Amino acid sequence: MKFATFTADGARRFGAVTDTGMVALNDAFPEWPTLFDAVRAGGLEALAEAAEGRQATHTDVTYEMVMPDARRILCVGVNFPDRNAEYKDGSDQPQYMSLFPRFASGFTGHDRPLIRPPESHKLDYEGEIAIVIGKAGRRIAEADAYDHIAALTICNEGTIRDWVRHAKFNVTQGKNWDRSGAIGPWLVPFTDPGQLDEARIVTRVNGEVRQDDVVSRMMFPIRKEIAYISTFMTLEPGDVIVTGTPTGSGARLDPPQFLAPGDVVEVEVAGIGTLRNTVEDEAQ
Amino acid sequence: MKFATFTADGARRFGAVTDTGMVALNDAFPEWPTLFDAVRAGGLEALAEAAEGRQATHTDVTYEMVMPDARRILCVGVNFPDRNAEYKDGSDQPQYMSLFPRFASGFTGHDRPLIRPPESHKLDYEGEIAIVIGKAGRRIAEADAYDHIAALTICNEGTIRDWVRHAKFNVTQGKNWDRSGAIGPWLVPFTDPGQLDEARIVTRVNGEVRQDDVVSRMMFPIRKEIAYISTFMTLEPGDVIVTGTPTGSGARLDPPQFLAPGDVVEVEVAGIGTLRNTVEDEAQ
Repeated sequence: MKFATFTADGARRFGAVTDTGMVALNDAFPEWPTLFDAVRAGGLEALAEAAEGRQATHTDVTYEMVMPDARRILCVGVNFPDRNAEYKDGSDQPQYMSLFPRFASGFTGHDRPLIRPPESHKLDYEGEIAIVIGKAGRRIAEADAYDHIAALTICNEGTIRDWVRHAKFNVTQGKNWDRSGAIGPWLVPFTDPGQLDEARIVTRVNGEVRQDDVVSRMMFPIRKEIAYISTFMTLEPGDVIVTGTPTGSGARLDPPQFLAPGDVVEVEVAGIGTLRNTVEDEAQ
Repeated sequence: MKFATFTADGARRFGAVTDTGMVALNDAFPEWPTLFDAVRAGGLEALAEAAEGRQATHTDVTYEMVMPDARRILCVGVNFPDRNAEYKDGSDQPQYMSLFPRFASGFTGHDRPLIRPPESHKLDYEGEIAIVIGKAGRRIAEADAYDHIAALTICNEGTIRDWVRHAKFNVTQGKNWDRSGAIGPWLVPFTDPGQLDEARIVTRVNGEVRQDDVVSRMMFPIRKEIAYISTFMTLEPGDVIVTGTPTGSGARLDPPQFLAPGDVVEVEVAGIGTLRNTVEDEAQ
């Protein structure tokens, strides 16, 4: 079972994704105006039961960012060994992970364009797995970390590469351009550690493989991310952690290859799906 | 007129702050469950009209972070010239401002304790003015920037100083400890440029002045902050910008003086108020 946020007939809805179309579930759960609200209430199983055996209600839909009202999205930076080496600053594996928040406004949905702004044409892709917290916790032990995950999804953590280096510290302004990235297509309930431990991330641009690596090679495994982050902040249902991108982003190619209008970027994770986005220049 | 979020009789409410107590306004505006919702709807004037001439409804209240459900809080780092010099890295004034998000969970309310965690005793204060956006905009001109501000408040941008340097980039984990900072006591509607242009920030610890500077000395003035941030993201009503702290945080004193249980920190801005917090060790 998979759950998405989408627009159809002029209204934003959420529902289950089936082979024949979307099964809208808003009407069945008026207490949860959004998919984010359903996740916060621990409602994914109830959604699955309600969708079971039902016919699609909508076939002509526009995907939205999977939870457009997500309040806390934390991204892990530089989390694959070759990617640390890509920075060519001679540093060994760092002791702690790099973390930065992104606002939901920086992401669009599946099958929609990433927006290249007029201020910079250095729009770059980063394929990643995102986890959605389902159970609150503080100072969560690594051994218990997976118990706190409700669902998985995919992120193209699109970045305006030169703006990442605007400031002395912090990548904030390169990571928060409106609709410069995407999260989706949908949430897949997390039921088996193998969904993460054996996951492979493949990013393609116009069909050419640019990133291809396995989660098991992360410098800071996902269990450790949950443990570390929950040391300083209580994780809450609905929180999103974007877990880190493999080597091979466009900025690190020689010569660099940034995204341009007409490009198609796909981030595929077997067992979750494929997040596909086009690229457009911002409307002037 | 001033507006606050508070708890009284076991329920969280919002209302107007008067000399005799709080005038709760939730019942008058059921369409706005929170003060954040009222700000998003452009409702501060309506709140003021509804509170006019009314008697206090609650005198025994606990202040909450002024908008506990604020979704986007952006902080400006290193924004006073002496503070840039404090970093002693030989750098001139930077070309662009440093920005980092903080989650609402990192802040408590007025007259409540900042929490020192067992993992680090390097809890530090940073007194700042925070602005609340009232009108949406993208690529806002500096000349128009003040038209987008709905209200002002005060922030103690409390920081776990050693965790700020955990990662290669980004200060995230030192800036997002649960209830390590405070925002409040209340919102003051912004009606006159002089409220900001002539503002002075004074931070005292146990009565001793530690920070004392004027907004007019900021390297990146507040008009420029709004213009720059809105270049990459559409500012929306309810967004909060924490505008930068003067020199004199505890980490930069010789020897450093971090906050300890029993300390009282006050951040005073004439025309807005005084945000007062105690310090407590986290309950074990």
